[in-house]
Amino acid sequence: MNDTLTLLMNHRSIRKFKDTPVSEEQLYAIISAAQMASTSSNVQAYSVIAATDPKLKKQLADLAGNQAYVEQCPVFLVWCADLYRLKQVTAAPLQERESYETTTENFIVATVDAALAAQNAAVAAESLGLGIVYIGGVRNHIAELSKLLDLPELVYPVFGMCIGVPDQEPGQRPRLPLESVLHLNAYSREQSVEPVKDYDATMKSYLQERTGGKKDTPWTHVMADRLAEPIRLHMKGFLDSKGFMKK
Amino acid sequence: MNDTLTLLMNHRSIRKFKDTPVSEEQLYAIISAAQMASTSSNVQAYSVIAATDPKLKKQLADLAGNQAYVEQCPVFLVWCADLYRLKQVTAAPLQERESYETTTENFIVATVDAALAAQNAAVAAESLGLGIVYIGGVRNHIAELSKLLDLPELVYPVFGMCIGVPDQEPGQRPRLPLESVLHLNAYSREQSVEPVKDYDATMKSYLQERTGGKKDTPWTHVMADRLAEPIRLHMKGFLDSKGFMKK
Repeated sequence: MNDTLTLLMNHRSIRKFKDTPVSEEQLYAIISAAQMASTSSNVQAYSVIAATDPKLKKQLADLAGNQAYVEQCPVFLVWCADLYRLKQVTAAPLQERESYETTTENFIVATVDAALAAQNAAVAAESLGLGIVYIGGVRNHIAELSKLLDLPELVYPVFGMCIGVPDQEPGQRPRLPLESVLHLNAYSREQSVEPVKDYDATMKSYLQERTGGKKDTPWTHVMADRLAEPIRLHMKGFLDSKGFMKK
Repeated sequence: MNDTLTLLMNHRSIRKFKDTPVSEEQLYAIISAAQMASTSSNVQAYSVIAATDPKLKKQLADLAGNQAYVEQCPVFLVWCADLYRLKQVTAAPLQERESYETTTENFIVATVDAALAAQNAAVAAESLGLGIVYIGGVRNHIAELSKLLDLPELVYPVFGMCIGVPDQEPGQRPRLPLESVLHLNAYSREQSVEPVKDYDATMKSYLQERTGGKKDTPWTHVMADRLAEPIRLHMKGFLDSKGFMKK
């Protein structure tokens, strides 16, 4: 076990932050580390908006489902898949050639590029003693939020990320048994599904312990409730309106 | 600068590996670190296939565009977005309720979950002295590759990853100027695009230096050639056939 592995294994999402700023130096170190993540064919198809303005953070918090920590954290990052830059800078060298920025393939490339960079940022932030939490809520009112941040066509906010000095020490939520996630030489349906029984029991005890017995819903029931929720059904139409996944 | 930041800043993709195995202990440490990455609402909607069988690695290398290192690396990981597990284990608790695993929203959730886990794995592997390279080529012949790995519906291979002991020390490719990628409080079209001129010059010198003057294509021209390539136009149809993004 080295320091980096220890850091990765100790990750917790932080939802309460001290009133301490994140310095420009820290922010630049975090984004520089993000930039060193792998990127498909060096396209670097992402951008990140750092929201530090209190009024803007309040507006973003409202749009992202009233999560107080979005407003309270000193820096709220909005990680965007960005094919706009590529489209703009290749206009001249493309000359009259057709280009394929609107394919589903390039949508995946840009989304993955944003996610790899963001995860490096998360690790970098934690290595500096800061805490983070990812915010899928930026997709709740994605059209309004995109307008607020002036995102052009071929850019969409994949997720947000609060960064700041932690003001809580939450427990660590157990993960699925490793064998459910890791398969050898082929996918095993049985191996993927069977260990979930054990995980249901693990999560049940974990919840009981954390809530003093008030909650004990097994993971599969929490997940069923989540899958039954018609959330963000606007995504397909929104992405289409931004020029993504035309073919 | 701490050890983890140094590690992140030193990332290079490795495409030549020593004939040294990755131990089971190392692989488990890498995947355990991957599992500790953030996951949307704890859905953990990904799986990873570790290909270690030489015959299978040869087949995967062929399908992924004849990249020799896919065959040569001791472990080739195929990172998959996986909503199959969730669908299976929620069948009983869902009872008669409608469920939304086929939405574009959940496609993004699963793709991002896979990417965050994979990037933690990349960092973990590098912290153990191993090298990695991401392989988008697993999407070249995605239907055949999915069949070879027996991937069920609602699972798709997002990318591969070679892992092994590095047998090369490649130079580090410069990234876009930070100001092109990092925006303050709103997206700036000018700031996104303008610094690319400097980057074109940077990449031109970098290539000249690396190739002894043989290559000097500016980044924007490399990118234009890439965008003009009709690559993986099958993705939309393939994902549809696997049950993704129905709405």
